[in-house]
Parts: sequence; C-alpha cells; structure tokens
Amino acid sequence: MLIFLLPLLLSLSASSHSHPLDPLTASEITTIRRVILSSASDQSFSFHYIGLDEPDKPALLSWRPSHAASLPRRAFVIARSDRQTHEILVDVSNRSIISNAIYRGAGYPILTAEEQTVAVELPSIYPPFLESIRKRGLDLAEVVCSTFSVGWFGEARRRRRRLLKILCFLAGETANYYVRPIEGVTIVVDLDKMEIVGYRDRAQIPVPKAEGTDYRAPAGKEKGKRKGGGVKPGVVVQPEGKGFEIEGHMVRWANWAFHLSFDVRAGTVISLASFYDAEKRSRRRVLHRGFVSELFVPYMDPTEDWYYKTFFDEGEFGVGLCASSLEPMADCPANAVFMDGCYAGGDGKPVVIKNVFCIFERYAGDVAWRHTEAGIPGQAITEVRPDVSLVVRMVCTNGNYDYVMDWEFKTTGSIKFGVSLTGILEVKATPYTHADQITSEQYGTLLADSTIAVYHDHFITYYLDVDVDGVNNSFVKSKLKTVHVTDGSTPRKSYWTVVKETADTEADAQVRLGSEPAELLIVNPNKKTKVGNIVGYQIIDHGGTAVSLLTEDDYPQMRARYSNKQVWVTAYNKSEKWASGLYVDQSTGDDNLATWSQKNRVIKNRDIVLWYTVGFHHIPCQEDFPLMPLLSGGFELRPFNFFESNPIIKTQPYRHLPSFNCTSNV
Amino acid sequence: MLIFLLPLLLSLSASSHSHPLDPLTASEITTIRRVILSSASDQSFSFHYIGLDEPDKPALLSWRPSHAASLPRRAFVIARSDRQTHEILVDVSNRSIISNAIYRGAGYPILTAEEQTVAVELPSIYPPFLESIRKRGLDLAEVVCSTFSVGWFGEARRRRRRLLKILCFLAGETANYYVRPIEGVTIVVDLDKMEIVGYRDRAQIPVPKAEGTDYRAPAGKEKGKRKGGGVKPGVVVQPEGKGFEIEGHMVRWANWAFHLSFDVRAGTVISLASFYDAEKRSRRRVLHRGFVSELFVPYMDPTEDWYYKTFFDEGEFGVGLCASSLEPMADCPANAVFMDGCYAGGDGKPVVIKNVFCIFERYAGDVAWRHTEAGIPGQAITEVRPDVSLVVRMVCTNGNYDYVMDWEFKTTGSIKFGVSLTGILEVKATPYTHADQITSEQYGTLLADSTIAVYHDHFITYYLDVDVDGVNNSFVKSKLKTVHVTDGSTPRKSYWTVVKETADTEADAQVRLGSEPAELLIVNPNKKTKVGNIVGYQIIDHGGTAVSLLTEDDYPQMRARYSNKQVWVTAYNKSEKWASGLYVDQSTGDDNLATWSQKNRVIKNRDIVLWYTVGFHHIPCQEDFPLMPLLSGGFELRPFNFFESNPIIKTQPYRHLPSFNCTSNV
Repeated sequence: MLIFLLPLLLSLSASSHSHPLDPLTASEITTIRRVILSSASDQSFSFHYIGLDEPDKPALLSWRPSHAASLPRRAFVIARSDRQTHEILVDVSNRSIISNAIYRGAGYPILTAEEQTVAVELPSIYPPFLESIRKRGLDLAEVVCSTFSVGWFGEARRRRRRLLKILCFLAGETANYYVRPIEGVTIVVDLDKMEIVGYRDRAQIPVPKAEGTDYRAPAGKEKGKRKGGGVKPGVVVQPEGKGFEIEGHMVRWANWAFHLSFDVRAGTVISLASFYDAEKRSRRRVLHRGFVSELFVPYMDPTEDWYYKTFFDEGEFGVGLCASSLEPMADCPANAVFMDGCYAGGDGKPVVIKNVFCIFERYAGDVAWRHTEAGIPGQAITEVRPDVSLVVRMVCTNGNYDYVMDWEFKTTGSIKFGVSLTGILEVKATPYTHADQITSEQYGTLLADSTIAVYHDHFITYYLDVDVDGVNNSFVKSKLKTVHVTDGSTPRKSYWTVVKETADTEADAQVRLGSEPAELLIVNPNKKTKVGNIVGYQIIDHGGTAVSLLTEDDYPQMRARYSNKQVWVTAYNKSEKWASGLYVDQSTGDDNLATWSQKNRVIKNRDIVLWYTVGFHHIPCQEDFPLMPLLSGGFELRPFNFFESNPIIKTQPYRHLPSFNCTSNV
Repeated sequence: MLIFLLPLLLSLSASSHSHPLDPLTASEITTIRRVILSSASDQSFSFHYIGLDEPDKPALLSWRPSHAASLPRRAFVIARSDRQTHEILVDVSNRSIISNAIYRGAGYPILTAEEQTVAVELPSIYPPFLESIRKRGLDLAEVVCSTFSVGWFGEARRRRRRLLKILCFLAGETANYYVRPIEGVTIVVDLDKMEIVGYRDRAQIPVPKAEGTDYRAPAGKEKGKRKGGGVKPGVVVQPEGKGFEIEGHMVRWANWAFHLSFDVRAGTVISLASFYDAEKRSRRRVLHRGFVSELFVPYMDPTEDWYYKTFFDEGEFGVGLCASSLEPMADCPANAVFMDGCYAGGDGKPVVIKNVFCIFERYAGDVAWRHTEAGIPGQAITEVRPDVSLVVRMVCTNGNYDYVMDWEFKTTGSIKFGVSLTGILEVKATPYTHADQITSEQYGTLLADSTIAVYHDHFITYYLDVDVDGVNNSFVKSKLKTVHVTDGSTPRKSYWTVVKETADTEADAQVRLGSEPAELLIVNPNKKTKVGNIVGYQIIDHGGTAVSLLTEDDYPQMRARYSNKQVWVTAYNKSEKWASGLYVDQSTGDDNLATWSQKNRVIKNRDIVLWYTVGFHHIPCQEDFPLMPLLSGGFELRPFNFFESNPIIKTQPYRHLPSFNCTSNV
C-alpha cells in the first residue's frame, strides 16, 4: 500500500445548494448585488454585510436532503447609501427584494475593507500630517497607517457622523510597524464624506527603533535549518487515510456530523452538529448553531490618544472579513484539508479567501481512556485507547492581533472550543528606556526601549444554540453545598451534596464562574436515560475565565455589559445573534445580550441559547515582543447523562499497527 | 533517506551514577537492604519507603559532572520492625547507617504492596466472610478484594493500631469488579498482626450485574477493526529523527535540560530544569525540583460503609508504587521512548516497573506563533511557526482510578503541568434501578442498574521548588484594580491598572484563585531585564480549579488543610516535601503544608517553594460508566519578563518539508 504524503490542498468550493445552510456562493452574491443595484439604479451602495438569512428554525429542522422543494435561499444585507443604513432582505432564488427598511437607531454596521483602504491613504495627502512627518524627520515612504474604531463616549444619541480614527506607524526596515507608532498623532475621518475631519498632533515622541522588531524569516537560509531551539519536525501519517468525509459543507467524522459554513461577520459557523448514538441506533442533536458572536478588546489607558480603544473586532471589523488564509504545514498539520470562504466586498462583488478553514484529525499522543488492573490474582490487564479528535480551525487577524479559533470534536461526544491569542500587541511610544525612569502611571508594561504595551482585555463571546437531544432545554446549576454534620450520626463533620436549580427565567441564568461551586448544565428535561437521569451536557472551563472589570457606567462596558459574567442563557430569538447588537460601530448599548436578558423571559424547557465568554486579562510582558507566542483558553461541552454509558468503551485497540518504510525526497 | 518506523521501545535503564540525583539503582537498593538487615540481624523489617536522600541544595547547585569527588549517595528509608517505625539514613557509597531513629508521632508510612496482597487474601479464610458470601449466593472463586485506607476520625492520638479496610467485589464474568461491590461488608485488618480485627456485614444488597461492565477488548477480532466510531489511526513520523537526547537521566530538548527521576512515593521527579537563553548565551534555571506531592481524594458519603473514604493516594499508597507500565502506541505515541523505574519492595528487594515513563515530542498541529500582515501596501506577509513540545508522561493506577500525569516543556520556556483522570469510579450497590425510586439523599448518581457512584473530589498537589534565574525568589500578586474616574479628565469612567504586592511572609501567599483578579508570579527580585522589568514566571490555570468544600473541623480536611486554596508558597525547607506530611496513613493533621505555613516565615527574596493544587469536583455521570473517558486539568508556568523578548521569534519555518512515500506491511 503506497501512501503519498503531500500537503493536501483540497480546495473545496461550495457547488450547488446541497444544504440550506450553505454559505452564499460567489454567484449568489453576484445575484444579490445585481438585484439591489438594479432596484435603485440612481443610488450607489456600499455593502457592509451580505450573509445568509438562514431558514427559520422549524423549517430547517424538518428539512431533509430528499425534499423535492428546497428551502428558499434568502440573504440579509446591510448596505449604506446616502448616509442611510438599509436592511435589505433578498430572495436569492427568485432574485427579488423581500424588504428594504432604513435603520434609524444608533450605531453603524461593519466597516468595509475598501473604505478602510481608502481612509488610510488620506493622511498621505493631508498637509498637517505631512508637516507632522517632516518635523519628526521621518520618511513618508515608510509610513503605514491603520484603522481604529472610535467607540462611543456619551455623545448624543442622534445620528452621529460615521467616524474612524487613523493612526500611523513606521515600516521600512521592518514589517512590524505596529511596534513603531508615530505617537501623539490622531486622525479622525468621516467615512461617509471620506474626509479628514479631525487632526491632533499632541506631542512629539521618538518612534521606537526597528531593530529587533521584525518577525519575518531571514531570506535565503538553507532549507529546514533551525535556529534558537533546534526542534525536529514531525509529520502525521494516516496509513488508512483520513477518517472524515466532507460533502459540500457537511462534515462527517467518527459519530459526528455537522455543517460548516463561513460568514463574513462570525467566521466559522457550525450548524446541526449531531452525534450518532450506536447504542440507541439513532442520530442525536447536540448543537444547532454555534459561532463566535463578538470579540471585545478594551484597553486600559484613559489618556487622550488611547481612551477610545475599546474594540469590538467582530461587530466593527468582521471576524470573517479579517480571516487570514491558512498556511499549509504551519497553521495546520500535513494531514489537514482546506476550505475556501467567500464573502461580498464593499462593492458587493464576491471575494474569495483561500484556505479560510482547515480540518484535520489531531493525534496529540493523548489517551482516550485507560485502565490497568492488577487486583485480579493471576491476571495482568491493561487496556488503553489512544485519543483522536477532529479540529476545525480558522484564524482572524484584525490588524495587529491574530486569533486562532479551534472547534474540536471528540469521539466521546464532547466539543471543545478554543481560542488562542498571538500576533502583535498595541504599544505606545514613550521617552522611557528603563522602568526605573517611570514615576507615574503609564497604563502598561515597558517591553523594550521606548515601547510600552498597554494593559487590555480580550473577551471572546460564543453564541451556542445548544439543542441537547431536541429543541426544548433547560439550564441547570448543580450547586455543590457543604453539609455540616452536627448530630454525631457519622464520624464525618462535613461532606458536599448537589442541589440542582433549574433556571426559570433569564435572570436565573447569568453566571460568574467561581462565584460559588457549581456544575453548569444544558439539559433536556423531556429526555431521560434508562435509569432516569435527565439527559444533558455539562459546561467545563479550560482556562481563560477573566471577566470585565470596567464599571457599569463606563461607555465601553455599556456596549458590552454581558462581559461581566462568563455565562448567559437566553430564550431563542432568531434576531438575537450578535452579543453587542446588530450595529456595533459607535453603538450606545441599547441592543445587546444584557438588554435582551432584561426581558427576563422563561428559559425553562424552552428553546434556549447559551452565551459563553472566554476572557483574558493581558498584562503584557517582554516575551510578547515583538510578537507574542500563543496564549490559549477555552471551554468544553461534555456529555452528562447524554449517553447510557461511556460511548467509546467499545473502541477497539490496534492489534497490529503497521510498521512503515518511508522514503523522503530530502 | 530511509526511515524505519517501528514502535520505539528503547528501555533506558540507569547505569552508573552519572548524576547525584539519579534514582537509586537496583544494586544500590540491594546494598541498602543488606546494610539495614545486617545491622539488626535479630529483627525483621518491612520496607515502606526507600528513596534517594538528595544532596543538600547548595552542594547540588555547585556540583559539576567534572568534579572528581561525587556527592555521597544517601538513602532515606522508612522501615517497620516490631511495630515501630524506623527512619534510617543510609550512606550508600560507604555502605553504612548514618542514623536510625524511631518515629513516635502520629501516622504511618506508605503501605507496602506485599502487605496489601496478603491482607486481601484474609477474607477468603475468614468464616464470617465465607458465611456472608454463602448467604448471598455468591461464588467465592469470583471474589476479589481490595484495600482502602482507614483515615483518622478523632481517635486518640496515642499509637493506634495500623489498620486497613478490605472491601470485596465480584469479578468472574468481568474484569471490572470495582463496579460490582459486595456492599455492606467491611473488613478491618490489623496490618502488623496481619489479622482481621473487625468485621461488619451490615446489609444484603444484590451485587450489580456484570453485563455492560467490562472494558476489555473482545478477543480474536480482526486486526485494526474499529467499532463505535470508525476513527482512523495516525502515526507521527520524524523525518529528521528525534529532537531530544537522553543521557542517563538527563534529558535535553530544544533549549531545555532537566533531570528525570523516579521515586516510589512521588512518581515523576523533574530536577534542575534550565533553559538555554540564546540571547544571553547562558543557561538559566527555572525549576530546581518538582513532583506531585499528594493526591487527596475525599468521598462525600457520610454513611457507615463510606464515611472513611478520604484517600491520600500518594502518602498512603505511593504514586510511584502504583505506577503502571505504559503501553506503547496507546499510552504514548509511536515516536515515544520509554524509561524504566526501580523501587524497593516491602522486602527491600529491587522491583522494576518497565516503561514507567515515556518521553515524546508532541505534534498536536498547533501554532507556536503567527501573524498575517495585510496593511503594508503591495506586500502580503504571512509568518507562521508550528508548535512542538516535549512531554514526559507517567500513569499512576491506584486501584480503580488511573491518573495520567504529563509534564510538558515548550520551546517558549513554559512548563505545562497536566493531570487527567480516567479508569473506574468507586460505586456502591443499591436496590435502586431507576432514579425515580430514590426519595432520600444517596450521596451520588445512579449510573446504571443498582449502581450509585458517590460524589467525590480529586486534589493533586504539586511541589515546585521554582528557582527563577537563581535561588532567591519572591511571590508577587499583580492585582488588577479597577480605577473609577470621576474627575472628567477623560471620556472613560474606568480602567484597570496593576498593583503589585510582594508577599513578605507565608501568610501573604495563600491564594484562592478567582477570589480577586490577579496574576500570580514567582520572580527573582535580584534580576532585571535590560529595560528594568523584574525577571519572573507567571502561574496560569488551565481548568481544574476546584478547592475543598469540607469544613475545617472535618477530620479529612484537617489532614489536608491546604486543599482549601490552590496556591501556597513556603520558605524552602528540605524536610517539607509531602503536603500532608511524611506519615500520611492515619495521620492527624499535625504535620502538613498548612501547619508549616503557620510559622509565617519570610518568603521575600528567599529560597521559596510553590505548591499548586489542581482540583476536580466529580459529580459522576453515566458516561463515567463502566470506565470514564479522560477529564483533564492543569496549569502552566510561563515566562514573564524572563526573556528580553519572545525566545522563539527567530525560529525558522520549514521551507521544504519533505514529501514521503511510505509503504506499510498491512
């Protein structure tokens, strides 16, 4: 048996509508654009969001591939024209507009890549900026500018201008311009006018030097030569081939099946994840739809140049829009396959991101289960099963930071959600070259000469419409209560027991992890195991449990109020997808997860949605310079009385793993 | 280049004393035994602990391989004779006894495997037990008994009898006797008399059935055939060979070097872990000595048959003594190498555990760092470096439970500590076959017909003599404090800043994680980076953060008082190694981490020790039956201003990874 191991670059593009949840194809996007433009030929539109308006849940749940009539394909579009935001629902199949409404509330949609590209060029023809460059003795050819959302700080809630801040940096000798800011210069752009409407050159602070900042591999080195570590490469070989199948956007692996889609705002969307239960001989539902809903990154420097840095990377910039093409053999291992993504640009035309996802089986050398039995006289029993899992990976690079987002499926029925931070920190130039020179609060760490990295947080909020074995679920807190024994009935003075509380309404389901010892579960109160335990899934954290420390009256916190607790559960409502609201740019906190929850709806034995936030407090350190090694955190949905017993107990071991003769072309 | 991929079963046995920390060899153990026995030829001894008495720290730190005179080899022995516990210090090099003192305090040493093997046979010749078997209609041939420590419940602190409880189970049709308890029968053995001194047959409850309990793979199946999942195998190939070298017990990989040893009580011992800093061109110390210090597993059922189950798996049974031989290609991946361990049995003779450790490079498909730069016009930059780490693994199987203990070294200078639970839960037989029948507290979950798994906790306490860049360190809490801005000086209303508190004495360094937002650090206050930040390592949790909920006056909690907080820091004291004291079996709480800390010693700029406890509350679920899939947790020591900058930024990517043609013998 001959096995070829080449980097597998299977580009899987979505072909026909094999599934109602498939992302909009290039040709559908083209159609949508044409329908909208031709409906209002005197208007020009910039397209800020074009995404699938997925079928209503009941229709989706009853859909089968064999159904003659497909579900209609619809798209939800946010487009701006003449300074107005249009919400347009398009019937893609029939090439018609279903509705077109003007949004008149606070906030703006995702910024387009095109307008940012144009905006960053404005300083280069703006005389005050050119003067700032000249007086600092800098070379304009080395200047690179980048975009920063302005946030909201109490400005009146009438229609504000749609603004964007531009900051500039020096590249030139280094690709790492983010650590070479031209500090003190802040440019404000009116995006609709595409004009600079504000300019501040507050102070001249020397730009940090380029030396030691670059991260690019030196060119022309011997192939494969390693420096600074000398680790040897490793490649995963699958002698029996891959264990997963991808048909269109449906992925099947082990007992899992799920739909994988790409959305320009959310990035990875996992839908209809179900697990085939061999014992029951039926496929059982676990996760109806899941995606990252928001990415809140507030900085902790209140000074003039920094106070506003309170980013909502998803609602303002789009996690999918910022997705990076994955590098084979580096971002993903040798046995990965890749999938492209397609989205609509600001002009409404389709854009492809190659290798936006990779899917691979992870052989980390871990154990799935084991036991050594030495207690039966005359018998030495050892049973061990190695672990394999399936990873779906995407990377979102929003300017300086890279987020590696993994969705990991396990043979046990668990799903592990992991997010890792890497890339470049936001820094400010400073006169200080040594920490001893610092005598006042600087709001960050001196990482290198003249370079302070500002304290900040990352909050990655997941939307998880968990449907455990069916649509109607409940949220249960299994609280561990210490029982004090005082009656002398036992030599023990204490033990803990479990007191289960089922949340009645949304107010009962807002949890700060660690506030009291409890296990958190999503259960199906209508389904029990044979011995009578309620079927469910447990929520387990694996690090990354920071919550926001901002005050409730602080503007960024009003826009992300939910970030003060890691867990929220709401009643399913199709329009409630985006934790900080549909329009996040310059939003005012009226429409978000916390405000919806104030409706205090019933969530007991209902269709409910779990919102889980992975959080990191980031006190920068020098190891983060000039670029940080991965820092990871996440959580797990783990079966809890979902199965009658361990679902992988019958997995068989390898009795005779083949030995290999491998020849390489080295 | 031809590469053969066979399971690598390099058994590396310790040869000569290449290092003063090398574990005692079989021949040294033999010598120690002979020295002790010949010193008191009229006495018989049972050996409860023989381990290296490592050289005092200053001597060890100044030792170099080139030194002509080795450090003397010494052993610390706990042996019992005539119901007395002897602490014997042996000079192994000179074959003489340095000291022999009788221990007169509370508690007893680790139980020997031999006495447990004899004890479990006693019921089979004990008439009341035979009667209990007969009246239940059971077959004595199927009965397997196991040992359970008795704990301490306030009995007078004079010299108690050294007792052990025996519980019995049914094997027969299944290997999984732990889930088929003969409930209600408790046997108490006096270990020194080796007699049954207590017997209770409290109630007849049918033994749970064997069906569905076995975990052994069915015999005679086709090779490689999979059931219940259909995952495909994967094998790691290293085309350039392994990246690590093992010389005796010294391991070198990437920039790491460390000594790996085996101790019959602690299991894995990592010593002298240092990192070569390429920028400083010097090797820098990180971890002087680290090992698992105790494994506290209290159950939450106060009734007669269960109240005492408050195990200290290390102090009572020995983590090394319970180490299981690792199964190649299952416990460890194809590219692992193995190392044997050697310990003294109860008779003092050496016993080898084959494959007690495995060491392998993990290629989990993760990223070490990455960045995609799209902001420089005309340049599309992507730099990605894949991650590799080195894992040292051991498995401890104490009766029913298996603990997979990983020590993972990363190229970034991080060390990740991971412990995973698998194996079999302790259950009680019950008349209930359905949860609806249960109307009173049962202290556990009904997992299957007639089978309740009792609630319990696991607390795995690590001893980490961290020496960050030198011996004298401090413990710092970088507290994140919210600053409320009320003077209108900024549009922001709040931000957080860092207030660093250096612990002066031990009382300042007992931390319950999550009680307040803080980053915890071990720093070297005498070392700073070039820009003036204090050199240190950060402590990061990765899940498994439960703390004990027992009351302070509860006997098991008195014996493990420290389990109410995850982090403790003490002043280094060579004798303070075992978190629950030297003598744990039947201990009374006088000598443990919490009591030592009451001395409130200075820990600022001193040689200090970090104690970190990974904790799990275990509410059992049906997926844990008949054996549980791995549940993992752990923590990380991560460089924090230890390096001047990211230590792996200069790692080069693979430019041309070879493609492989592999033929297998399938």
